[in-house]
Amino acid sequence: MEVFTDRYFMNEALKEAKKAFDNDEVPVGAVVVVQDQIIAKAYNQVELLKDPTAHAEMLAITSAANFLGSKYLTDCTIYITLEPCLMCASALFWSKISRVVFAAADDKNGFMRLGKGVLHPKTKVEYGLMEPESRVLLQSFFEQKRK
Amino acid sequence: MEVFTDRYFMNEALKEAKKAFDNDEVPVGAVVVVQDQIIAKAYNQVELLKDPTAHAEMLAITSAANFLGSKYLTDCTIYITLEPCLMCASALFWSKISRVVFAAADDKNGFMRLGKGVLHPKTKVEYGLMEPESRVLLQSFFEQKRK
Repeated sequence: MEVFTDRYFMNEALKEAKKAFDNDEVPVGAVVVVQDQIIAKAYNQVELLKDPTAHAEMLAITSAANFLGSKYLTDCTIYITLEPCLMCASALFWSKISRVVFAAADDKNGFMRLGKGVLHPKTKVEYGLMEPESRVLLQSFFEQKRK
Repeated sequence: MEVFTDRYFMNEALKEAKKAFDNDEVPVGAVVVVQDQIIAKAYNQVELLKDPTAHAEMLAITSAANFLGSKYLTDCTIYITLEPCLMCASALFWSKISRVVFAAADDKNGFMRLGKGVLHPKTKVEYGLMEPESRVLLQSFFEQKRK
């Protein structure tokens, strides 16, 4: 039985998203994995840091690059609970990451409306894994905000 | 005679770009200005920090937001020596910055190939100011690299 599946790592990203939720941030989480090892975890901290660039993916990319001592994240996979925005997708482009796996789509701000060409040609993209779990978390957050 | 002109601030951004050049980084600089006061300066530090997200604009945005204690840079102008890439343009979108002024165009990686819609609808964009000065710096950098 394989333990370190995509589902395992996406669940770790969801745990990060829940930390964001508990801190009153839009609940998005990300983990970066290389050879079944998590080298970076992050959740959205835009409100805490009052920094529009502090999306989960950006923090995870910076943290992973720091861990590897390299500006390139070749051979890494990033698991994200929400489709990256253009900023994060373009940061992933610069990182030349091998694989991007995201859960829920973001039709408003996601990069996919511009096509996969925003990412590096060598980067593989998959999505939909644990989408319902991520969606429920996002919906509860925005419903709570509207109250 | 007005001292704090666009040219004055773009020249400050060029000074930042020269610091990048002197540190063997792609020479790009940025300054953020509010009411004729520079509140953030930065140059590209991708190699130094080994961080693919450490573009001049990203560092300047984070620094300016930190100075203002706000995730929004409304009423600010950013002066950049090179056309922002998609990552930086999208970060500027999230910041809702009032005005973006850049010197040289970047036909390969610049955001303008996707149109001004990458920025916030309220953000004004101007370009071409001190383009030759910025271009010369970039060309010397890449010529030196090819040697």
